[in-house]
Order: sequence, then C-alpha cells, then structure tokens
Amino acid sequence: MQTDRKILIESIKRLLRRGAVSNLRKIVNKTHAADLAVVFRSLTLSEQRRLFDLIDRIETKGVLLEDLDEDTLMLLLESMDLRSVVDILDSMPKDDAVDLIGRLPDELADAILDFMKKSGSQDVEDLLGYDDETAGGIMTPDFIALREDTTAAEAIESLQKEYQDVEMPFYLYVVDEYGKLVGVSSLRQLVLTPPDQQLRDFMSTDVISVRTHVDQEEVAKLVARYDFLAVPVVDDTNRLVGIVTVDDVIDIFREEATEDILKMAGAGEDFIETKSVMKSSRIRLPWLAASCAGGIFAFMIIGHFEGSLQKAAYLAAFIPVIMGMGGNIGTQTSTIVVRGLATGRIHLRDFRSVLFKEFATGLILGLVYGSLVALAAQFRYSIAAAAASVGIAVVSSMTVAALVGSLVPMTFARFNIDPAVATGPFVTTAIDIISVYFYFQIATILLGF
Amino acid sequence: MQTDRKILIESIKRLLRRGAVSNLRKIVNKTHAADLAVVFRSLTLSEQRRLFDLIDRIETKGVLLEDLDEDTLMLLLESMDLRSVVDILDSMPKDDAVDLIGRLPDELADAILDFMKKSGSQDVEDLLGYDDETAGGIMTPDFIALREDTTAAEAIESLQKEYQDVEMPFYLYVVDEYGKLVGVSSLRQLVLTPPDQQLRDFMSTDVISVRTHVDQEEVAKLVARYDFLAVPVVDDTNRLVGIVTVDDVIDIFREEATEDILKMAGAGEDFIETKSVMKSSRIRLPWLAASCAGGIFAFMIIGHFEGSLQKAAYLAAFIPVIMGMGGNIGTQTSTIVVRGLATGRIHLRDFRSVLFKEFATGLILGLVYGSLVALAAQFRYSIAAAAASVGIAVVSSMTVAALVGSLVPMTFARFNIDPAVATGPFVTTAIDIISVYFYFQIATILLGF
Repeated sequence: MQTDRKILIESIKRLLRRGAVSNLRKIVNKTHAADLAVVFRSLTLSEQRRLFDLIDRIETKGVLLEDLDEDTLMLLLESMDLRSVVDILDSMPKDDAVDLIGRLPDELADAILDFMKKSGSQDVEDLLGYDDETAGGIMTPDFIALREDTTAAEAIESLQKEYQDVEMPFYLYVVDEYGKLVGVSSLRQLVLTPPDQQLRDFMSTDVISVRTHVDQEEVAKLVARYDFLAVPVVDDTNRLVGIVTVDDVIDIFREEATEDILKMAGAGEDFIETKSVMKSSRIRLPWLAASCAGGIFAFMIIGHFEGSLQKAAYLAAFIPVIMGMGGNIGTQTSTIVVRGLATGRIHLRDFRSVLFKEFATGLILGLVYGSLVALAAQFRYSIAAAAASVGIAVVSSMTVAALVGSLVPMTFARFNIDPAVATGPFVTTAIDIISVYFYFQIATILLGF
Repeated sequence: MQTDRKILIESIKRLLRRGAVSNLRKIVNKTHAADLAVVFRSLTLSEQRRLFDLIDRIETKGVLLEDLDEDTLMLLLESMDLRSVVDILDSMPKDDAVDLIGRLPDELADAILDFMKKSGSQDVEDLLGYDDETAGGIMTPDFIALREDTTAAEAIESLQKEYQDVEMPFYLYVVDEYGKLVGVSSLRQLVLTPPDQQLRDFMSTDVISVRTHVDQEEVAKLVARYDFLAVPVVDDTNRLVGIVTVDDVIDIFREEATEDILKMAGAGEDFIETKSVMKSSRIRLPWLAASCAGGIFAFMIIGHFEGSLQKAAYLAAFIPVIMGMGGNIGTQTSTIVVRGLATGRIHLRDFRSVLFKEFATGLILGLVYGSLVALAAQFRYSIAAAAASVGIAVVSSMTVAALVGSLVPMTFARFNIDPAVATGPFVTTAIDIISVYFYFQIATILLGF
C-alpha cells in the first residue's frame, strides 16, 4: 500500500510538471478522497491549487479541505471565492463543516457564516454554539428520526426519500410528538420485520443517550464500551438534537492520546511540528520554565553544601546518577498512573492501594539499583561512607520519586484537573530538587562534615 | 453516569453481603453487560463468582470474561467446568473468543481447544493460527458473503435465515464461485433497491481489502482513513476469510497509544499497574538499567574533571540545571517526533527538514534559557567565566538534545524499529552524558584550569 501511494504521488507530480491536464483530471477523479489527501500533503501550494480545480466531485474537495493543516487551508481558501467555499461546506457532513469553520480565523469564519445564513444553512451556526470538545460540538444533526406509529415499510420509504444524505443510516431513532427520544431501532431490524409492523412494536426503549454538554472523551468511552456505531445526543429536555458517529469517536481517541502524550512530555497540547520554528519555539518555551526554575533552585541547594564539596569534590560525580534514577522511575510511575486513569484501568477509589504499590515498587527497585551504584562508587573511590551515602541517596530518591509520581497525578485527578499536565516537567523537576537535597544531606552527615 | 454506576456498585455489594439472591438476579439481568463489567472490577473474587452464576444470558458472561484481567480470569475459569466455559466461548463473536483463549496459559487453552474441536468448532483453532497483532489475528470469520447473481430479495431472506449471528451486518460482500472477493454492497443499498435486482447490478467493485498478515495498526489506520465500519480480510489468493470491524479498530488505537506511551516512558509495553508489586518491579527493572549505566558512566566522566572541581567546587552546583534542561527538551522533541510518526503527521521523507527544524528550535530555546541560567549564575557567584561556561553548556546541551531527540527516533523508524522505544531512558541517558561532558570541558577551558 505504501508503495502504491508513492507511485501515485510521483505520477501526479510528473503530470503536474508536464501540465498534462486531461490525464491529471482522469487520475484525480478516479482516486479515493482519502488517498488524494495523502498526495495533497506532499505538494506545494500552487500544485495543490491546480489539482484542487481539477476535482469534479464536490465531496472529494470537502475531504481534502478537512485534511489540510491550518496554514495551507487558509491560503487555499483565500484564493477561492466565497460561493464555492460555501458550496463545498454545504456538501460536507455538518459536523465536519463545523470543525473546518472552527479552524479558520474569525474574519473568514464570520464571512462564511453570514453567507451560509443568507442561503439558509442555520444548522451550522447552531452547531457552532456548542463547546468544541463536547457531544454538542462533535455531533451531526443529520440523523433518522421517525414517529412510533411509522410502519417498517414507511420507514424504508422515508430512507429512500427524506434521508438520502444521512451519513450513517444504521440506527433509526424514534421520537414522540415533541421530538423527545423514546426508542431506537436499526436498519437490520427494519429489514427483518414484516412491512406493516409499527416501530413501537419492535423498537428498543432502552436507548442510551448523552446530553449536549458531555465531554467528548466521555462520549467516546461510552461508544467504545457498548460497541455502538453511533450514540444519540439530546438536549436538557431529552429532545433529540444530533448523533455522534463511530468514525468521529476514533478521531477523538487518537486526538486525546496525542494530547495526553504531548502534555506528559511538556510539549503543549496540540501537535507542534508542522508549525514554523519561531511558533514552535514560542509554544515550547513556557513548558521548560518549570525545569529551569527547578534547576536554578537546585544550584542554590548545592551552593548551600559548598563546604562539603570543597572537602570532597568527588561527591559531585554522583549527582547525575541520583537525579537520573529518580527522574526515570518518576516518569515510569506517573506515566503508568496517568495512562491507567485515562483508560479506566486505575480508579480514583484505589488511591491508597496504588500509592502503596508504587511506594513498594520504588523501594524494591531503589534497593536493587542503590546497591549497584554504591558498589560502583566503592570500586571507584574506596570510601565506604561516600559509597553508603550514594547508595542511600539512590534508594530514597527512587522511593520518593515513585511516591511523588503516583501521588501528584492521582491528586490532580481527584480535583478534576487533567493529570497529564502533572507528569513531565513538573514531577521530574520536583524529584530533581528533592533528590539532590537528600543526597547532600545524607553525605554531609555520613562523612561527618 | 459516574454517579449512576457508583450507586449500582454499592447496591450490588450490599445485596451480596445480605445474600439477597433473587434481588441480585433481577438487577444483574437487567444491567447492560458493559456496565456489569465495570461493577465486576470492584468486587472480590468470591463475589465475582457468586454474581457470575446469577447471570442468565450467556452472551453477558462472555462480555464479562473478556473484560477481566488475566489473574482473575484464570481463577474464575478454573472454578468452572470445561463444558460451561466452552458454551460461553461458543456464544462469543469468534474473534473475541480467540483473544480470550490467547490470554490463557497454554495448558488450559489446549484443553479448551481440544474440547471445542470435538464439538466441531474448527474456526477458533484456525484463527489462532494467525499472528496476534495482524489482520488475521483480529478478524472475525462471521461475515455476509453472497454470490453475484443473488437478488436483493434473496439477500434479505438470507439475512433473516443464515446470517442471524453476524455481528455487524452492514456490508454484504460478494464472492465468486471460488470464494474470491469481487464486490461489496451495503444493507442500505439493499433496502433502496428493487427486490428482483441482482447484486452484480448494484454492488461496488472498488472494494478495498487487506491481507491476513497485515499489521493491526495498518488495518486500523485504513479503517480510520476511509471511515469504514468494517474491512474485509483476504488470503494470498484473494479468498475472503474474515472481516475486521470498527469496534475492534477502536480497541487497537487505544491499545497502541497505551503501548507507545508506556514504551516512551520506559515502563514496558503492557499495562503493569494491575500486576503484583514483585511482578511489576521485575518488568520495570530492565528499563532503568540504561539510566543506571549512563549515570555510572557520567560519574566516570566527572571523575575525570576532579582537578577542576577541586579548584572550583561551585561548578558542581550547575550539573542539575544543565542535565535538566537538556533532558526536558530532549523528551519534548522525541515525543513530538514519535507521536508525529505514529499519527502520520511526520513522514520519513521529511528527515532533513524535521532535523533542521528541531535543531533550530533547540538553539533558540537554548539561547533563551542559557542566558537566563548564566545570569542567575553570575548573580550568585560573580565569576564571569563560570557564568559563561554554564550558559554555553546549557545552549549546547539543549541544541544537542533537540538533535538527538529527533535523530534517534527518525533513524529507528527508517530501519523499521519501533521509534517509541528510542525515547525515554535511552535518549535521556545519552543526553545526560553528552551534557555533563560538554559542561566540564567548556568550564575547564574557560576557567583556564
């Protein structure tokens, strides 16, 4: 598949260079939109523009726009007239159109919305009213809603007429006269039922729904837990206002995983690499501040022990191993806890048992590596008190690190603060400072300074 | 929802204590299997056993078994007779049954397979022949396959008779007389087509499929890219042998994200926290070895500069900030690169531009924080040459870290080695050693020792 795509990219580039318009048009309109999107990413802006104009299917254009990064998207849209932009947006599933508009600068977004309102697309504006990362923000208002007294035959007929555009027509939702959700049936059930039977007779009334304000991660977890293909979204009065489909759920999980990973590494929330060097430096700058402040604090602490260092300069040699071991086990622990909380394998109610387990693990690993490092120190300097100090410092640094690494994210989660931000720079910096302080304190006592 | 579940857990526990069997039975059989699974996790083994016996629907039992961790699963299965275990497995979607058997110790798995073979379930054994993390390993052999000359009406009839058990009956695959995949249609198309029309007239022949040996992550990406609900799996002769459904794709993405996160933090591949302290210590032990070896190596290096340290003990004070800044920007960079490669936002063909960008970002951030740390050092010790050494060391440590942090995972990926393992302990340890060495080398020169 990789090679197929490489060939596709190369032939499109070659045809673009040659200006072989009719060949290009043929290829472009034969290729799946998702594949074109991959090709698009490796073209220059002017190539993208030329290729874009050759596409006949407006839905394909929509898929391509969705997939572009912000800067390219902006440039491409600015070179088009508003009418064609709105036509493309109208052809997209509404939730995707809303996403796209949400990514544009305010001016352009407003101009597009004005234009859409004039041509009667109120839906999109309504959807923009919901918070981005909630059920309301990710739902699509295109769903199938029928009344209880609809027969199977009538339902099939309405699928052919009214609901041609519905993205995922697998669930048929049943609503009462006020639009309130009362039941659900499926396309499969419809097919298996005698044509004159009414929905109320074969629908399921145990229909699980979410409210518009529910966080998108909660929605995704729910869909995953029950293996749904879509989940209905209702407002506070239980009126059906949209559905969230499984393809969006996949995107949410991938997005949330990326967010968590980046946050844990102290690299912002959104993916940075595609931005310019200056922009990416600016985003990453603040995340390093904690570690810089911690480092400066650490040199204050060590400065405090300058007397000991003057008597035994070799003590400095052990700073890296003590910090490194503490830092690494701290990262291990906090990562396990953060990911465990995110995937539901660790629960807040297990606070104490998690803490105890991590403490014990830190102690065991600390004893193993503490002895090892002490042996190495003894071997190198043959000063028993120094070797003992280093060994004890490694044990305590690793134990404390395991404790801090589990305590901090669990505490954050308890107060409903995203535990992922607690990992990375903050935890490691705290551990660095504690480790260094312990080490010099222990050495000063054991060496009798 | 959280509170609903809490109430459910508490009432079930209360009823278990009271031994209110008939009430329990009522609740248990009214609750959705996915919700019961959550309850199950907070019960003791003996409570789980008692509750399990009260479940009437065998499918619910299957869902519960799937969700248990290995140790609990083993204990529960061992307390049951083989006949009932096999009955439950038979009721599960085949791909899930295979997963479950794959998680059991060999002895038990073999006993179960023997029993299944005798009662005629060859499918499961066949599936076990595929590698766990490939399309073959995750597919289910329950799909709808019809011949080209089947009419829409006949197709609907076969849905009612033959294919009652199919998990996701949304795509109808069309095969030729040798079972080779030639087309696809959907339940939706079936409903919208006149009953006497043949599949060949309305099926799509552009059917995207994967081979059995394709990696599960590739399969998941494909389903996500095209927004499929399922993708057909074919053998090397294009014979349709199974399908991978979207619910499994969600699980794959979550699993792969967890794997990547844990690997990056040097915390193994599988989730550890649910295991015992000794087991989890054993798994985490080797991942810390790199950092320990690196630390010991660092003290050899510093030992080499003992002369400088004896003349200027205060030099030791800056070790933590130099290591910390290098380590943190290294983690930032490698995390961005690893995640970028995993999500397709960074491509191997951009090798040079990524490296250049990270180098430039490292240099800019290095200059900012280097100046800051130099200022702090000057303020504290008022020795210009020392302050300059520290500043330059921070700049070079951060620049090198950004370079190493992007170079290592990109190189690993180029050689088809999982880049996630390159992050974490290995990169940070390498950076620690380089940083410390640079620092002392620079200081020794600038201070004229």
